[in-house]
Amino acid sequence: MKVVALVYPGMTALDLVGPVQAWSFLPGFDIQYVWRTPGAVRSDCGLSVVATHGFADAWSDPDVLVTGGGGKPTLDLLGDAELAAFLADRGARARWVCSVCTGALLLGAAGLLKGYRAATHWSARDALPGFGAEASDDRICIDRNRLTGGGITAGVDFGIAVAGHWMGAETGKVLELVMEYAPQPPYGTGRPDLADPQTLERAQAALAAMMAA
Amino acid sequence: MKVVALVYPGMTALDLVGPVQAWSFLPGFDIQYVWRTPGAVRSDCGLSVVATHGFADAWSDPDVLVTGGGGKPTLDLLGDAELAAFLADRGARARWVCSVCTGALLLGAAGLLKGYRAATHWSARDALPGFGAEASDDRICIDRNRLTGGGITAGVDFGIAVAGHWMGAETGKVLELVMEYAPQPPYGTGRPDLADPQTLERAQAALAAMMAA
Repeated sequence: MKVVALVYPGMTALDLVGPVQAWSFLPGFDIQYVWRTPGAVRSDCGLSVVATHGFADAWSDPDVLVTGGGGKPTLDLLGDAELAAFLADRGARARWVCSVCTGALLLGAAGLLKGYRAATHWSARDALPGFGAEASDDRICIDRNRLTGGGITAGVDFGIAVAGHWMGAETGKVLELVMEYAPQPPYGTGRPDLADPQTLERAQAALAAMMAA
Repeated sequence: MKVVALVYPGMTALDLVGPVQAWSFLPGFDIQYVWRTPGAVRSDCGLSVVATHGFADAWSDPDVLVTGGGGKPTLDLLGDAELAAFLADRGARARWVCSVCTGALLLGAAGLLKGYRAATHWSARDALPGFGAEASDDRICIDRNRLTGGGITAGVDFGIAVAGHWMGAETGKVLELVMEYAPQPPYGTGRPDLADPQTLERAQAALAAMMAA
């Protein structure tokens, strides 16, 4: 499986590392990390990651196209014609078009979600119809060959679930055990409908501040 | 909070990205990514990450020392005197000494877990007593200022729970919502006691193959 994974300045590292970590444990996965040109890009946690390939020399016919999301840097890319053209080109030929978190907005801006259901970060669902997509509140949304995950940590569930979708449940079960994915969220507040009003208000304020930064 | 985060060739990227992603959303966290010398190191999913500092110029008095784990590359570092000296030095002065997955073995080899309880990947628990530590089967183990997490994906729980430990439950609750941590593990096989015997056997074989690679 040839995977083209988008990396870009300000990306939320965990959005992408969740799925690629899962897939890297499987045989036969080869991943190109792609940005405009090869070299280091700084993610939103200060960790710089290295693009192995540029738009020009990334596989033209990947099996998988995947992108994570982020805050303001991701929104700033929605009007980037070069990026949209790259995603539209690879997405048109990829067997599977994937995103986690607000990566769905990047797919949307490239025209790849028109007429599809898609998941994204809970705070960004309202933006999906603007790209002709139907917002899903599922943690993992599979609509034909568009595979999308919810916010940030959903990338972990996404990586394992999609591996199982591609390679069968036996592979998914082993991967989940190798990755010790028996989660114990410490507070139980991980979705708006689970959180108390004060937590929701503070999270919305924190996200708004990140978007304004 | 000054965080010294170890990065090294062959590290499991998600082990480290889980906690640093969580902490990067909090105000006042400043993270140095540290290896022998600054520059890119290739993680086990093919994603290279950039060490911002070398052992010589990393903060001498961090608030937090944290390391993730990995497979064979991590085990190969257990006899690395330079690394052990660096970890022992910073760990002696850090307010909090942290690991995820087999990062606990690196702390152990540096003498930092003598007389402490610690968590690690389920497949590596038997190695902890060799470093004078008591193996915990908890997903997050807090013993005085030694904070350790279980395997790979435990880093996500770890990052959020430890943030709450440091900054209070209100902060932890907001962080869990911002990160949309409402996990839905697709197969329910994420611990040996949850998995069927065939899945456990296949996971053990996969891990053994990684260790031999």
